Amino acid sequence: MKVLKTQKCFSGSVRFCEMASLATSTDMKFSTFTPDGPLRGALIWLSGLTCTEENFMVKAGAQRYLADAGLMVICPDTSPRGLALPGEHDSYDFGSGAGFYVNATTDGYRGHYRMYDHIAHEIYALLETEFAMKDKISIFGHSMGGHGALTIGLKEKGKFKSVSAFAPIANPSRCAWGEKAFTGYLGGDRAVWAAHDATELIAGGLIHPRPLLVDQGDADEYMEKQLLPGHLEKACKEAGQKLNLRYQPGYDHSYYFISTFMRDHVDFHAGHLR
Amino acid sequence: MKVLKTQKCFSGSVRFCEMASLATSTDMKFSTFTPDGPLRGALIWLSGLTCTEENFMVKAGAQRYLADAGLMVICPDTSPRGLALPGEHDSYDFGSGAGFYVNATTDGYRGHYRMYDHIAHEIYALLETEFAMKDKISIFGHSMGGHGALTIGLKEKGKFKSVSAFAPIANPSRCAWGEKAFTGYLGGDRAVWAAHDATELIAGGLIHPRPLLVDQGDADEYMEKQLLPGHLEKACKEAGQKLNLRYQPGYDHSYYFISTFMRDHVDFHAGHLR
Repeated sequence: MKVLKTQKCFSGSVRFCEMASLATSTDMKFSTFTPDGPLRGALIWLSGLTCTEENFMVKAGAQRYLADAGLMVICPDTSPRGLALPGEHDSYDFGSGAGFYVNATTDGYRGHYRMYDHIAHEIYALLETEFAMKDKISIFGHSMGGHGALTIGLKEKGKFKSVSAFAPIANPSRCAWGEKAFTGYLGGDRAVWAAHDATELIAGGLIHPRPLLVDQGDADEYMEKQLLPGHLEKACKEAGQKLNLRYQPGYDHSYYFISTFMRDHVDFHAGHLR
Repeated sequence: MKVLKTQKCFSGSVRFCEMASLATSTDMKFSTFTPDGPLRGALIWLSGLTCTEENFMVKAGAQRYLADAGLMVICPDTSPRGLALPGEHDSYDFGSGAGFYVNATTDGYRGHYRMYDHIAHEIYALLETEFAMKDKISIFGHSMGGHGALTIGLKEKGKFKSVSAFAPIANPSRCAWGEKAFTGYLGGDRAVWAAHDATELIAGGLIHPRPLLVDQGDADEYMEKQLLPGHLEKACKEAGQKLNLRYQPGYDHSYYFISTFMRDHVDFHAGHLR
Protein backbone atom coordinates (compact mmCIF):
# COMPACT_ATOMS: atom_id res chain seq x y z
CA MET A 1 0.00 0.00 0.00
CA LYS A 2 1.13 3.52 -0.83
CA VAL A 3 0.17 6.43 1.43
CA LEU A 4 -0.75 9.49 -0.64
CA LYS A 5 -1.68 11.89 2.17
CA THR A 6 -1.82 11.91 5.98
CA GLN A 7 -3.87 14.37 8.06
CA LYS A 8 -4.19 14.47 11.81
CA CYS A 9 -7.74 14.21 13.14
CA PHE A 10 -8.79 13.80 16.77
CA SER A 11 -6.15 11.58 18.38
CA GLY A 12 -5.18 9.80 15.19
CA SER A 13 -4.57 10.04 11.47
CA VAL A 14 -6.70 10.10 8.33
CA ARG A 15 -4.74 8.59 5.44
CA PHE A 16 -5.52 8.43 1.74
CA CYS A 17 -3.86 5.43 0.14
CA GLU A 18 -3.58 3.35 -2.99
CA MET A 19 -2.92 -0.32 -3.66
CA ALA A 20 -2.35 -2.39 -6.79
CA SER A 21 -5.41 -4.65 -6.88
CA LEU A 22 -5.16 -8.13 -8.36
CA ALA A 23 -8.95 -8.39 -8.14
CA THR A 24 -9.69 -5.40 -10.35
CA SER A 25 -6.40 -5.25 -12.27
CA THR A 26 -6.28 -1.52 -11.47
CA ASP A 27 -4.90 0.63 -8.71
CA MET A 28 -7.57 0.99 -6.03
CA LYS A 29 -7.81 3.91 -3.64
CA PHE A 30 -8.94 3.73 -0.03
CA SER A 31 -8.77 5.80 3.12
CA THR A 32 -8.09 4.85 6.72
CA PHE A 33 -8.51 6.43 10.11
CA THR A 34 -6.25 4.98 12.77
CA PRO A 35 -6.46 6.33 16.29
CA ASP A 36 -3.22 6.51 18.22
CA GLY A 37 -2.62 3.77 20.78
CA PRO A 38 -3.58 0.09 20.82
CA LEU A 39 -6.40 -0.97 18.50
CA ARG A 40 -9.28 -3.19 19.52
CA GLY A 41 -10.27 -3.90 15.93
CA ALA A 42 -11.05 -2.64 12.45
CA LEU A 43 -14.21 -1.68 10.59
CA ILE A 44 -14.63 -1.82 6.84
CA TRP A 45 -16.99 0.92 5.61
CA LEU A 46 -18.64 0.44 2.22
CA SER A 47 -20.02 3.61 0.64
CA GLY A 48 -23.05 4.16 -1.55
CA LEU A 49 -23.64 5.13 -5.18
CA THR A 50 -21.44 7.95 -6.55
CA CYS A 51 -19.15 7.93 -3.51
CA THR A 52 -15.39 7.56 -3.34
CA GLU A 53 -12.99 6.65 -0.56
CA GLU A 54 -13.35 10.22 0.74
CA ASN A 55 -17.04 10.71 1.64
CA PHE A 56 -17.10 8.82 4.90
CA MET A 57 -13.98 10.53 6.24
CA VAL A 58 -15.35 14.00 5.52
CA LYS A 59 -19.01 13.59 6.37
CA ALA A 60 -19.67 10.78 8.85
CA GLY A 61 -18.14 12.39 11.93
CA ALA A 62 -16.94 8.95 13.02
CA GLN A 63 -13.36 9.71 14.00
CA ARG A 64 -14.17 10.81 17.52
CA TYR A 65 -16.19 7.68 18.24
CA LEU A 66 -13.58 5.42 16.66
CA ALA A 67 -10.85 7.05 18.73
CA ASP A 68 -12.92 6.59 21.88
CA ALA A 69 -13.54 2.92 21.03
CA GLY A 70 -10.01 2.11 19.87
CA LEU A 71 -11.16 1.06 16.40
CA MET A 72 -9.71 1.87 13.00
CA VAL A 73 -11.77 2.16 9.84
CA ILE A 74 -10.87 1.48 6.22
CA CYS A 75 -13.00 2.95 3.42
CA PRO A 76 -12.49 1.44 -0.05
CA ASP A 77 -13.55 3.16 -3.24
CA THR A 78 -16.87 2.09 -4.80
CA SER A 79 -15.54 0.84 -8.15
CA PRO A 80 -12.39 0.54 -10.21
CA ARG A 81 -11.27 3.83 -11.77
CA GLY A 82 -9.32 4.95 -14.80
CA LEU A 83 -11.01 2.56 -17.21
CA ALA A 84 -13.27 3.21 -20.18
CA LEU A 85 -15.47 0.12 -20.41
CA PRO A 86 -18.60 0.25 -22.59
CA GLY A 87 -21.23 2.29 -20.71
CA GLU A 88 -19.06 2.58 -17.61
CA HIS A 89 -19.40 6.33 -17.13
CA ASP A 90 -22.88 6.88 -18.56
CA SER A 91 -24.96 6.83 -15.37
CA TYR A 92 -24.65 7.36 -11.62
CA ASP A 93 -26.11 3.96 -10.72
CA PHE A 94 -23.97 1.62 -12.84
CA GLY A 95 -20.27 1.36 -13.65
CA SER A 96 -17.87 3.86 -12.09
CA GLY A 97 -18.91 4.79 -8.54
CA ALA A 98 -21.45 1.96 -8.54
CA GLY A 99 -19.63 -1.40 -8.39
CA PHE A 100 -22.26 -2.95 -6.08
CA TYR A 101 -19.59 -5.10 -4.39
CA VAL A 102 -20.10 -8.10 -6.71
CA ASN A 103 -17.74 -9.99 -8.98
CA ALA A 104 -19.00 -9.23 -12.47
CA THR A 105 -19.44 -12.11 -14.90
CA THR A 106 -20.60 -10.23 -18.00
CA ASP A 107 -18.30 -9.77 -20.95
CA GLY A 108 -17.77 -6.06 -20.57
CA TYR A 109 -17.12 -6.04 -16.81
CA ARG A 110 -15.69 -9.34 -15.58
CA GLY A 111 -12.12 -8.28 -16.23
CA HIS A 112 -12.18 -5.42 -13.73
CA TYR A 113 -15.39 -5.15 -11.71
CA ARG A 114 -14.49 -7.70 -9.03
CA MET A 115 -15.38 -5.56 -6.02
CA TYR A 116 -16.45 -8.56 -3.91
CA ASP A 117 -12.98 -10.02 -4.09
CA HIS A 118 -11.41 -6.61 -3.59
CA ILE A 119 -13.28 -6.10 -0.31
CA ALA A 120 -13.71 -9.61 1.09
CA HIS A 121 -10.22 -10.78 0.24
CA GLU A 122 -7.80 -7.96 -0.63
CA ILE A 123 -8.92 -5.29 1.83
CA TYR A 124 -9.44 -7.98 4.45
CA ALA A 125 -5.93 -9.34 3.86
CA LEU A 126 -4.51 -5.82 4.04
CA LEU A 127 -6.08 -5.40 7.47
CA GLU A 128 -4.50 -8.67 8.56
CA THR A 129 -1.03 -8.04 7.16
CA GLU A 130 -0.52 -4.28 7.36
CA PHE A 131 -2.58 -3.59 10.49
CA ALA A 132 -2.45 -6.92 12.41
CA MET A 133 -6.25 -7.00 12.68
CA LYS A 134 -6.73 -10.77 12.23
CA ASP A 135 -9.99 -11.95 13.81
CA LYS A 136 -10.85 -8.36 14.83
CA ILE A 137 -12.73 -7.15 11.76
CA SER A 138 -16.35 -6.05 11.27
CA ILE A 139 -18.14 -4.48 8.32
CA PHE A 140 -20.76 -1.81 7.73
CA GLY A 141 -21.95 0.56 5.03
CA HIS A 142 -24.62 2.79 3.53
CA SER A 143 -27.19 2.18 0.78
CA MET A 144 -25.38 0.20 -1.96
CA GLY A 145 -22.60 -0.21 0.60
CA GLY A 146 -25.06 -1.24 3.30
CA HIS A 147 -26.09 -4.06 1.02
CA GLY A 148 -22.46 -4.84 0.29
CA ALA A 149 -21.80 -5.10 4.01
CA LEU A 150 -24.77 -7.43 4.51
CA THR A 151 -23.87 -9.77 1.62
CA ILE A 152 -20.14 -9.89 2.31
CA GLY A 153 -20.74 -10.16 6.04
CA LEU A 154 -23.14 -13.07 5.54
CA LYS A 155 -21.14 -14.94 2.93
CA GLU A 156 -17.89 -14.49 4.88
CA LYS A 157 -19.47 -14.83 8.29
CA GLY A 158 -16.42 -16.51 9.73
CA LYS A 159 -14.35 -13.46 8.88
CA PHE A 160 -16.59 -10.63 10.08
CA LYS A 161 -17.48 -10.43 13.76
CA SER A 162 -20.46 -8.14 13.23
CA VAL A 163 -22.42 -6.50 10.43
CA SER A 164 -24.46 -3.30 10.31
CA ALA A 165 -25.98 -1.03 7.69
CA PHE A 166 -27.53 2.38 7.17
CA ALA A 167 -30.44 2.38 4.73
CA PRO A 168 -29.22 -0.62 2.72
CA ILE A 169 -30.58 -1.55 -0.70
CA ALA A 170 -31.94 -4.58 1.09
CA ASN A 171 -33.29 -6.67 -1.77
CA PRO A 172 -31.65 -5.50 -4.99
CA SER A 173 -33.22 -8.23 -7.15
CA ARG A 174 -36.54 -6.46 -6.57
CA CYS A 175 -35.71 -2.79 -7.19
CA ALA A 176 -34.68 -0.70 -10.19
CA TRP A 177 -31.18 0.10 -8.93
CA GLY A 178 -30.43 -3.55 -8.26
CA GLU A 179 -32.03 -4.87 -11.43
CA LYS A 180 -29.94 -2.52 -13.53
CA ALA A 181 -26.71 -3.34 -11.72
CA PHE A 182 -27.24 -7.11 -11.55
CA THR A 183 -28.21 -7.25 -15.23
CA GLY A 184 -25.09 -5.32 -16.13
CA TYR A 185 -22.68 -7.21 -13.89
CA LEU A 186 -24.26 -10.67 -13.66
CA GLY A 187 -26.45 -10.96 -16.76
CA GLY A 188 -30.17 -11.29 -17.26
CA ASP A 189 -30.73 -14.66 -15.57
CA ARG A 190 -32.49 -13.77 -12.32
CA ALA A 191 -31.84 -17.22 -10.90
CA VAL A 192 -28.18 -16.34 -10.39
CA TRP A 193 -28.95 -13.05 -8.67
CA ALA A 194 -30.09 -14.64 -5.41
CA ALA A 195 -26.52 -15.52 -4.46
CA HIS A 196 -25.71 -11.80 -4.51
CA ASP A 197 -28.81 -10.46 -2.75
CA ALA A 198 -28.80 -10.19 1.06
CA THR A 199 -32.52 -10.76 1.50
CA GLU A 200 -32.50 -13.80 -0.78
CA LEU A 201 -29.39 -15.19 0.92
CA ILE A 202 -31.07 -14.97 4.32
CA ALA A 203 -34.32 -16.38 2.93
CA GLY A 204 -32.19 -19.25 1.64
CA GLY A 205 -30.89 -19.97 5.11
CA LEU A 206 -27.59 -18.09 5.31
CA ILE A 207 -27.46 -16.70 8.85
CA HIS A 208 -24.86 -14.60 10.64
CA PRO A 209 -24.29 -15.75 14.24
CA ARG A 210 -24.53 -12.17 15.58
CA PRO A 211 -27.60 -9.91 15.31
CA LEU A 212 -27.57 -7.45 12.41
CA LEU A 213 -28.04 -3.75 13.15
CA VAL A 214 -29.86 -1.74 10.47
CA ASP A 215 -30.93 1.92 10.74
CA GLN A 216 -33.46 3.28 8.26
CA GLY A 217 -34.78 6.84 8.15
CA ASP A 218 -38.53 6.79 7.66
CA ALA A 219 -38.38 10.00 5.58
CA ASP A 220 -35.83 8.41 3.24
CA GLU A 221 -36.99 9.17 -0.29
CA TYR A 222 -35.65 5.84 -1.58
CA MET A 223 -37.13 3.59 1.11
CA GLU A 224 -40.32 2.49 -0.60
CA LYS A 225 -39.07 1.78 -4.11
CA GLN A 226 -35.35 1.03 -3.85
CA LEU A 227 -34.39 0.01 -0.31
CA LEU A 228 -37.23 -2.33 0.69
CA PRO A 229 -36.31 -2.81 4.36
CA GLY A 230 -39.54 -4.73 4.92
CA HIS A 231 -38.32 -7.51 2.63
CA LEU A 232 -35.18 -7.90 4.74
CA GLU A 233 -37.21 -7.85 7.93
CA LYS A 234 -39.54 -10.58 6.68
CA ALA A 235 -36.70 -12.80 5.49
CA CYS A 236 -34.85 -12.44 8.79
CA LYS A 237 -37.95 -13.26 10.79
CA GLU A 238 -38.77 -16.34 8.76
CA ALA A 239 -35.21 -17.63 8.60
CA GLY A 240 -34.29 -16.89 12.21
CA GLN A 241 -31.65 -14.22 11.52
CA LYS A 242 -31.57 -11.86 14.46
CA LEU A 243 -32.06 -8.29 13.26
CA ASN A 244 -32.32 -4.97 15.04
CA LEU A 245 -34.05 -2.85 12.37
CA ARG A 246 -34.65 0.66 13.66
CA TYR A 247 -36.89 3.04 11.74
CA GLN A 248 -35.62 6.51 12.64
CA PRO A 249 -38.45 9.03 12.43
CA GLY A 250 -37.90 12.01 10.12
CA TYR A 251 -34.43 11.11 8.84
CA ASP A 252 -33.57 10.95 5.13
CA HIS A 253 -30.90 9.11 3.10
CA SER A 254 -28.07 11.60 3.69
CA TYR A 255 -24.96 11.77 5.85
CA TYR A 256 -26.97 14.01 8.22
CA PHE A 257 -28.83 10.77 9.04
CA ILE A 258 -25.69 8.63 9.06
CA SER A 259 -23.73 10.98 11.32
CA THR A 260 -26.60 11.05 13.80
CA PHE A 261 -26.47 7.30 14.41
CA MET A 262 -22.77 6.71 13.73
CA ARG A 263 -21.95 6.41 17.39
CA ASP A 264 -24.47 3.61 17.87
CA HIS A 265 -22.89 1.62 15.04
CA VAL A 266 -19.34 2.15 16.26
CA ASP A 267 -20.39 1.08 19.75
CA PHE A 268 -22.27 -1.94 18.32
CA HIS A 269 -19.17 -3.17 16.54
CA ALA A 270 -16.89 -2.31 19.44
CA GLY A 271 -19.05 -4.54 21.63
CA HIS A 272 -18.66 -7.47 19.25
CA LEU A 273 -14.91 -6.88 18.83
CA ARG A 274 -14.22 -6.92 22.54
CA MET B 1 -36.14 34.14 4.55
CA LYS B 2 -37.05 31.28 2.30
CA VAL B 3 -36.31 27.68 3.34
CA LEU B 4 -35.07 25.66 0.36
CA LYS B 5 -34.45 22.33 2.10
CA THR B 6 -34.80 20.81 5.57
CA GLN B 7 -32.97 17.68 6.77
CA LYS B 8 -33.14 16.10 10.19
CA CYS B 9 -29.80 15.71 11.96
CA PHE B 10 -29.23 14.65 15.56
CA SER B 11 -32.12 16.12 17.54
CA GLY B 12 -32.72 19.04 15.23
CA SER B 13 -32.83 20.29 11.66
CA VAL B 14 -30.32 21.42 9.06
CA ARG B 15 -31.91 23.99 6.77
CA PHE B 16 -30.67 25.58 3.57
CA CYS B 17 -32.19 29.01 3.07
CA GLU B 18 -32.11 32.16 1.00
CA MET B 19 -32.78 35.82 1.75
CA ALA B 20 -33.00 38.97 -0.37
CA SER B 21 -30.01 40.98 0.83
CA LEU B 22 -30.15 44.77 0.82
CA ALA B 23 -26.44 44.83 1.61
CA THR B 24 -25.33 42.92 -1.48
CA SER B 25 -28.34 43.63 -3.73
CA THR B 26 -28.47 39.90 -4.47
CA ASP B 27 -30.13 36.88 -2.98
CA MET B 28 -27.82 35.41 -0.32
CA LYS B 29 -27.82 31.78 0.73
CA PHE B 30 -27.18 30.50 4.23
CA SER B 31 -27.69 27.36 6.27
CA THR B 32 -28.86 26.84 9.83
CA PHE B 33 -28.83 24.04 12.35
CA THR B 34 -31.46 24.40 15.04
CA PRO B 35 -31.66 21.76 17.75
CA ASP B 36 -35.13 20.93 19.03
CA GLY B 37 -36.15 22.45 22.33
CA PRO B 38 -35.29 25.79 23.95
CA LEU B 39 -32.21 27.62 22.63
CA ARG B 40 -29.54 29.19 24.80
CA GLY B 41 -28.12 31.21 21.93
CA ALA B 42 -26.88 31.40 18.36
CA LEU B 43 -23.46 31.17 16.72
CA ILE B 44 -22.58 32.76 13.41
CA TRP B 45 -19.99 30.66 11.52
CA LEU B 46 -17.93 32.40 8.84
CA SER B 47 -16.28 30.07 6.33
CA GLY B 48 -12.99 30.32 4.50
CA LEU B 49 -11.89 30.84 0.89
CA THR B 50 -13.83 28.85 -1.75
CA CYS B 51 -16.49 27.73 0.75
CA THR B 52 -20.24 28.11 0.54
CA GLU B 53 -23.01 27.92 3.12
CA GLU B 54 -22.73 24.13 2.95
CA ASN B 55 -19.18 23.21 4.04
CA PHE B 56 -19.58 23.66 7.76
CA MET B 57 -22.80 21.66 7.92
CA VAL B 58 -21.27 18.71 6.08
CA LYS B 59 -17.76 18.65 7.48
CA ALA B 60 -17.50 20.25 10.93
CA GLY B 61 -19.36 17.59 12.91
CA ALA B 62 -20.79 20.37 15.10
CA GLN B 63 -24.44 19.37 15.23
CA ARG B 64 -24.08 16.96 18.10
CA TYR B 65 -22.24 19.49 20.26
CA LEU B 66 -24.69 22.26 19.36
CA ALA B 67 -27.62 20.02 20.26
CA ASP B 68 -25.99 19.16 23.58
CA ALA B 69 -25.35 22.85 24.32
CA GLY B 70 -28.74 24.13 23.13
CA LEU B 71 -27.18 26.43 20.54
CA MET B 72 -28.16 27.08 16.94
CA VAL B 73 -25.69 28.00 14.21
CA ILE B 74 -26.13 30.06 11.06
CA CYS B 75 -23.61 29.77 8.21
CA PRO B 76 -23.70 32.52 5.58
CA ASP B 77 -22.20 32.16 2.13
CA THR B 78 -18.73 33.67 1.56
CA SER B 79 -19.65 36.17 -1.18
CA PRO B 80 -22.52 37.34 -3.34
CA ARG B 81 -23.35 34.96 -6.20
CA GLY B 82 -24.86 35.20 -9.64
CA LEU B 83 -22.92 38.28 -10.68
CA ALA B 84 -20.28 38.78 -13.35
CA LEU B 85 -18.16 41.66 -12.07
CA PRO B 86 -14.76 42.30 -13.69
CA GLY B 87 -12.34 39.64 -12.45
CA GLU B 88 -14.87 38.20 -10.02
CA HIS B 89 -14.52 34.56 -11.01
CA ASP B 90 -10.87 34.51 -12.08
CA SER B 91 -9.23 33.25 -8.88
CA TYR B 92 -10.01 31.28 -5.72
CA ASP B 93 -8.77 34.04 -3.39
CA PHE B 94 -10.66 37.06 -4.68
CA GLY B 95 -14.24 37.71 -5.78
CA SER B 96 -16.76 34.88 -5.64
CA GLY B 97 -16.16 32.61 -2.65
CA ALA B 98 -13.71 35.15 -1.21
CA GLY B 99 -15.61 38.20 0.01
CA PHE B 100 -13.35 38.66 3.05
CA TYR B 101 -16.28 40.03 5.10
CA VAL B 102 -15.55 43.69 4.24
CA ASN B 103 -17.66 46.39 2.61
CA ALA B 104 -15.93 47.03 -0.71
CA THR B 105 -15.26 50.61 -1.74
CA THR B 106 -13.65 50.06 -5.14
CA ASP B 107 -15.53 50.88 -8.31
CA GLY B 108 -16.02 47.32 -9.48
CA TYR B 109 -17.15 45.86 -6.17
CA ARG B 110 -18.81 48.44 -3.91
CA GLY B 111 -22.24 47.83 -5.40
CA HIS B 112 -22.44 44.21 -4.23
CA TYR B 113 -19.51 43.09 -2.08
CA ARG B 114 -20.79 44.38 1.23
CA MET B 115 -20.25 41.23 3.26
CA TYR B 116 -19.54 43.12 6.49
CA ASP B 117 -23.01 44.63 6.45
CA HIS B 118 -24.53 41.34 5.38
CA ILE B 119 -23.09 39.53 8.41
CA ALA B 120 -22.93 42.19 11.11
CA HIS B 121 -26.34 43.70 10.35
CA GLU B 122 -28.53 41.52 8.13
CA ILE B 123 -27.66 38.08 9.46
CA TYR B 124 -27.57 39.50 12.97
CA ALA B 125 -31.00 41.07 12.52
CA LEU B 126 -32.34 37.80 11.12
CA LEU B 127 -31.21 36.02 14.29
CA GLU B 128 -33.02 38.63 16.36
CA THR B 129 -36.24 38.69 14.40
CA GLU B 130 -36.69 35.18 13.03
CA PHE B 131 -35.03 33.26 15.87
CA ALA B 132 -35.49 35.56 18.90
CA MET B 133 -31.77 35.44 19.69
CA LYS B 134 -31.35 39.07 20.82
CA ASP B 135 -28.34 39.42 23.15
CA LYS B 136 -27.52 35.74 22.77
CA ILE B 137 -25.22 35.77 19.74
CA SER B 138 -21.55 34.86 19.32
CA ILE B 139 -19.35 34.54 16.25
CA PHE B 140 -16.60 32.23 15.00
CA GLY B 141 -15.02 31.07 11.77
CA HIS B 142 -12.12 29.54 9.87
CA SER B 143 -9.23 31.10 7.95
CA MET B 144 -10.71 34.05 5.98
CA GLY B 145 -13.81 33.51 8.12
CA GLY B 146 -11.75 33.32 11.31
CA HIS B 147 -10.49 36.78 10.47
CA GLY B 148 -14.02 37.89 9.64
CA ALA B 149 -15.17 36.69 13.06
CA LEU B 150 -12.35 38.56 14.79
CA THR B 151 -12.93 41.87 12.98
CA ILE B 152 -16.72 41.79 13.17
CA GLY B 153 -16.63 40.56 16.76
CA LEU B 154 -14.25 43.37 17.75
CA LYS B 155 -15.96 46.17 15.85
CA GLU B 156 -19.40 45.09 17.03
CA LYS B 157 -18.30 44.00 20.48
CA GLY B 158 -21.56 45.06 22.05
CA LYS B 159 -23.42 42.64 19.81
CA PHE B 160 -21.27 39.52 20.08
CA LYS B 161 -20.86 37.88 23.47
CA SER B 162 -17.78 35.89 22.47
CA VAL B 163 -15.43 35.44 19.51
CA SER B 164 -13.30 32.49 18.42
CA ALA B 165 -11.41 31.39 15.34
CA PHE B 166 -9.73 28.41 13.73
CA ALA B 167 -6.51 29.29 11.90
CA PRO B 168 -7.54 32.87 11.07
CA ILE B 169 -5.76 35.03 8.51
CA ALA B 170 -4.73 37.08 11.49
CA ASN B 171 -3.07 40.08 9.89
CA PRO B 172 -4.25 40.31 6.28
CA SER B 173 -2.48 43.63 5.60
CA ARG B 174 0.76 41.68 5.86
CA CYS B 175 0.13 38.59 3.74
CA ALA B 176 -0.43 37.89 0.06
CA TRP B 177 -4.06 36.73 0.43
CA GLY B 178 -5.00 39.85 2.37
CA GLU B 179 -3.02 42.26 0.23
CA LYS B 180 -4.76 40.97 -2.89
CA ALA B 181 -8.22 41.11 -1.33
CA PHE B 182 -7.82 44.49 0.37
CA THR B 183 -6.38 46.04 -2.80
CA GLY B 184 -9.32 44.70 -4.79
CA TYR B 185 -12.04 45.62 -2.32
CA LEU B 186 -10.58 48.68 -0.53
CA GLY B 187 -8.04 50.10 -2.96
CA GLY B 188 -4.29 50.51 -2.80
CA ASP B 189 -4.05 52.93 0.16
CA ARG B 190 -2.70 50.79 2.98
CA ALA B 191 -3.62 53.42 5.55
CA VAL B 192 -7.29 52.52 5.19
CA TRP B 193 -6.66 48.78 5.55
CA ALA B 194 -5.98 48.94 9.31
CA ALA B 195 -9.68 49.47 10.05
CA HIS B 196 -10.37 46.09 8.43
CA ASP B 197 -7.49 44.07 9.91
CA ALA B 198 -7.99 42.32 13.27
CA THR B 199 -4.36 42.57 14.38
CA GLU B 200 -4.17 46.27 13.49
CA LEU B 201 -7.50 46.96 15.19
CA ILE B 202 -6.28 45.37 18.42
CA ALA B 203 -2.91 47.13 18.13
CA GLY B 204 -4.92 50.34 17.81
CA GLY B 205 -6.69 49.66 21.08
CA LEU B 206 -9.93 47.95 20.11
CA ILE B 207 -10.49 45.29 22.76
CA HIS B 208 -13.25 42.73 23.23
CA PRO B 209 -14.30 42.36 26.88
CA ARG B 210 -14.15 38.55 26.72
CA PRO B 211 -11.01 36.51 25.97
CA LEU B 212 -10.61 35.39 22.36
CA LEU B 213 -10.14 31.67 21.65
CA VAL B 214 -7.94 30.83 18.65
CA ASP B 215 -6.82 27.33 17.61
CA GLN B 216 -3.96 27.00 15.14
CA GLY B 217 -2.54 23.72 13.81
CA ASP B 218 1.24 23.85 13.87
CA ALA B 219 1.45 21.73 10.69
CA ASP B 220 -0.82 24.18 8.85
CA GLU B 221 0.82 24.83 5.48
CA TYR B 222 -0.45 28.43 5.46
CA MET B 223 0.62 29.42 8.98
CA GLU B 224 3.98 31.01 8.26
CA LYS B 225 3.17 33.08 5.18
CA GLN B 226 -0.57 33.77 5.23
CA LEU B 227 -2.00 33.32 8.73
CA LEU B 228 0.63 35.00 10.94
CA PRO B 229 -0.79 34.03 14.35
CA GLY B 230 2.30 35.49 16.03
CA HIS B 231 1.31 38.97 14.88
CA LEU B 232 -2.08 38.60 16.56
CA GLU B 233 -0.48 37.24 19.70
CA LYS B 234 1.92 40.18 19.93
CA ALA B 235 -0.80 42.76 19.36
CA CYS B 236 -3.06 41.18 21.99
CA LYS B 237 -0.26 41.06 24.53
CA GLU B 238 0.73 44.68 23.99
CA ALA B 239 -2.81 46.02 23.91
CA GLY B 240 -4.17 43.95 26.78
CA GLN B 241 -6.63 41.84 24.74
CA LYS B 242 -7.04 38.51 26.50
CA LEU B 243 -6.28 35.69 24.06
CA ASN B 244 -6.17 31.93 24.42
CA LEU B 245 -4.07 31.00 21.36
CA ARG B 246 -3.54 27.24 21.24
CA TYR B 247 -1.00 25.75 18.85
CA GLN B 248 -2.28 22.25 18.13
CA PRO B 249 0.59 19.92 17.32
CA GLY B 250 0.43 18.09 13.98
CA TYR B 251 -2.86 19.54 12.70
CA ASP B 252 -3.23 21.16 9.29
CA HIS B 253 -5.66 23.72 7.81
CA SER B 254 -8.48 21.29 7.01
CA TYR B 255 -11.83 20.36 8.50
CA TYR B 256 -10.09 17.32 10.05
CA PHE B 257 -8.44 19.91 12.30
CA ILE B 258 -11.61 21.97 12.75
CA SER B 259 -13.78 18.96 13.64
CA THR B 260 -11.26 17.85 16.24
CA PHE B 261 -11.57 21.07 18.25
CA MET B 262 -15.15 21.99 17.38
CA ARG B 263 -16.47 20.83 20.72
CA ASP B 264 -14.10 23.15 22.58
CA HIS B 265 -15.35 26.14 20.58
CA VAL B 266 -19.01 25.26 21.03
CA ASP B 267 -18.45 24.84 24.76
CA PHE B 268 -16.49 28.14 24.90
CA HIS B 269 -19.36 30.06 23.36
CA ALA B 270 -21.98 28.18 25.36
CA GLY B 271 -20.18 29.31 28.49
CA HIS B 272 -20.34 32.96 27.45
CA LEU B 273 -23.98 32.67 26.35
CA ARG B 274 -25.15 31.26 29.66
